[in-house]
Amino acid sequence: MVELTRRATFSASHYYWNDEWSTEENEKVFGRCANRNGHGHNYTLEVTVAGTPDPITGFVVDLKWLKDVIEREVLSAYDHRHLNLEVPEFKTAIPTTENIAIAAWRRLEPSLAEAGAARLRRVRVYETPEIFAEYRGEA
Amino acid sequence: MVELTRRATFSASHYYWNDEWSTEENEKVFGRCANRNGHGHNYTLEVTVAGTPDPITGFVVDLKWLKDVIEREVLSAYDHRHLNLEVPEFKTAIPTTENIAIAAWRRLEPSLAEAGAARLRRVRVYETPEIFAEYRGEA
Amino acid sequence: MVELTRRATFSASHYYWNDEWSTEENEKVFGRCANRNGHGHNYTLEVTVAGTPDPITGFVVDLKWLKDVIEREVLSAYDHRHLNLEVPEFKTAIPTTENIAIAAWRRLEPSLAEAGAARLRRVRVYETPEIFAEYRGEA
Amino acid sequence: MVELTRRATFSASHYYWNDEWSTEENEKVFGRCANRNGHGHNYTLEVTVAGTPDPITGFVVDLKWLKDVIEREVLSAYDHRHLNLEVPEFKTAIPTTENIAIAAWRRLEPSLAEAGAARLRRVRVYETPEIFAEYRGEA
Amino acid sequence: MVELTRRATFSASHYYWNDEWSTEENEKVFGRCANRNGHGHNYTLEVTVAGTPDPITGFVVDLKWLKDVIEREVLSAYDHRHLNLEVPEFKTAIPTTENIAIAAWRRLEPSLAEAGAARLRRVRVYETPEIFAEYRGEA
Amino acid sequence: MVELTRRATFSASHYYWNDEWSTEENEKVFGRCANRNGHGHNYTLEVTVAGTPDPITGFVVDLKWLKDVIEREVLSAYDHRHLNLEVPEFKTAIPTTENIAIAAWRRLEPSLAEAGAARLRRVRVYETPEIFAEYRGEA
Repeated sequence: MVELTRRATFSASHYYWNDEWSTEENEKVFGRCANRNGHGHNYTLEVTVAGTPDPITGFVVDLKWLKDVIEREVLSAYDHRHLNLEVPEFKTAIPTTENIAIAAWRRLEPSLAEAGAARLRRVRVYETPEIFAEYRGEA
Repeated sequence: MVELTRRATFSASHYYWNDEWSTEENEKVFGRCANRNGHGHNYTLEVTVAGTPDPITGFVVDLKWLKDVIEREVLSAYDHRHLNLEVPEFKTAIPTTENIAIAAWRRLEPSLAEAGAARLRRVRVYETPEIFAEYRGEA
Repeated sequence: MVELTRRATFSASHYYWNDEWSTEENEKVFGRCANRNGHGHNYTLEVTVAGTPDPITGFVVDLKWLKDVIEREVLSAYDHRHLNLEVPEFKTAIPTTENIAIAAWRRLEPSLAEAGAARLRRVRVYETPEIFAEYRGEA
Repeated sequence: MVELTRRATFSASHYYWNDEWSTEENEKVFGRCANRNGHGHNYTLEVTVAGTPDPITGFVVDLKWLKDVIEREVLSAYDHRHLNLEVPEFKTAIPTTENIAIAAWRRLEPSLAEAGAARLRRVRVYETPEIFAEYRGEA
Repeated sequence: MVELTRRATFSASHYYWNDEWSTEENEKVFGRCANRNGHGHNYTLEVTVAGTPDPITGFVVDLKWLKDVIEREVLSAYDHRHLNLEVPEFKTAIPTTENIAIAAWRRLEPSLAEAGAARLRRVRVYETPEIFAEYRGEA
Repeated sequence: MVELTRRATFSASHYYWNDEWSTEENEKVFGRCANRNGHGHNYTLEVTVAGTPDPITGFVVDLKWLKDVIEREVLSAYDHRHLNLEVPEFKTAIPTTENIAIAAWRRLEPSLAEAGAARLRRVRVYETPEIFAEYRGEA
């Protein structure tokens, strides 16, 4: 059993805002992140799959295939986008680093469930080099 | 003569758009950066001053003072902001990495001109770890 | 269940020395780290908490609150300090990376035990980019 | 129980090739990695051991000893080498990142099994900053 | 006048060898780099162009165009290649970091000479994060 | 003409203190750096030499030789040392990043003056990833 990880990056805008709260309450809880004009980050996404290396190829999964899955399922929807305004799952959930990690897991998991013996193990999202969230599909 | 550099970071949104062009022309020239919802980056700003270390303190400038200047002159205006919508100089100039480097220089230079024997030498702005622009105040 | 991590840095001095040993024995075991004048490092501290994102805020914990806890419980005691001479827990335990990770856990755990549904999951300490220790509160 | 990690780096060449396949099949599966002239990487190896810090020294293991083990067991065989042509285990297994992680584990484990209360916990190998594999000795 | 830099990476093999010397002499001068099986690196290439930002676009050069030039002129020839065996300029010059920087400059300069007001200012090549060479086209 | 750079690291303690000032004045000017117990950093030293690559070897200088010079002239004196207490030049000059850059230049320059056609071009010292000083031997 080996875990294989591939990193990718995307640049996106977001803000933190709860429509049911007043402006004052939003600013109190979310601080500068409540700015409705949005601000942004260079996010780093780490996708980890686990499995036994194929005895012929030595691959847990083909990294070119994994890159294409990440591109198709996550980056095409998130990169150079405003997460609140353009990504369906963030119309209801605030795009915190925690929620982005969960959402990226849900986007990736169906494709990886078809990847033979390998399975999705972990998704880590860095909002900055100082802040990251990790989700393993557990309730 | 020693050059002393301090790094700072800020997170901001921007887009590339020329009001005098059609949507098609903007998308042709600016690609995904023409998305009017904006996208964002973790920018890194490197500010370099040059001077002779003070014989008593060993300082070209006091780094705490330099940090405060960067915070007051640049970060308070750019961090967690939408550059096109909230920063005066980017209402007329597109906030490319090149233009941000020039704008940060212009914001910093007056304070540093008062810093005794030291002077502003160079401003470098990283939009991502792969792309950066550097300005030295030269025409 | 999501793990959320925040990094912080501190600069400190330390040395490795066992009072019950001779100078020769200390130098044999600890090498250059036995220099009683001390040497130092830029340490990086990674604090990981685990919990379910709040359905309203999307937060496992408020990262501003976590930053303040790290500052108050660890950085105010360790940063710009000589660990052996100024930090109580290192008067009896040698400030190796392993022991710093354990000590930081013990400093952080009480505050995090009060953080609602989230709990402290992991403390990682980098002495240099090449050496790090990780503690999860397990015996 | 603390996990202690040390990083090391090595530079090596490799290629991906299955002798039982045609050139076309190798190129289809392995792409540019099938170039028989070889290409190379700066690999980063992270070796993690787990144990209880010694109450006298504060060490899980002596990091100087661990550095010597890594040098003797792995780097002396892999660094500045062509993995396919010069390393015995890669005459039968393709030197993918996954297989290098497993092979490094097998090279390190016997020496670490003699390291008192500490034991080898994890080997992580970065082929590039974007791709890494991790092995924990599990089937 | 602003300098704009774009980074790219490539993975390649090389060795250091002078055909006019004996094996002993090669090994004495080049050490482990004289291994004829080759070893390899993840190289980082930084290409810097200088010019005045276009008043309409804010670009010194279009970074997408620059990326394509780097891909076409350098990466297509160097990436996943054995530099000594597959790259014409390294059949006569040893592919040291110094010579790679000069060679990349010569490959890039003609395309950049056609880039309007901008011109190639500097090429920097990292063999590892610890070693890099920089060339500015000067004799 | 090519510039070739090699990085090295050292860990050291220091403090900022002027004996002719009162404690209050030292603390006012130097803040937490005035702590006489010392604090420390992982310093990164970048040494840049300039010259024409030798037509036979492709070397501006032999990097193994340069590594040995840096080790002998700088690291053996600074690494795992308290700069104020153990390094002669910092008994009179405060070991700020600026002064360390100048001092490292002076230590390196005589050896490099003997390095044939190459000469010392630049010394850069990082105190942290956020702060660095650069000296080029100019008054």
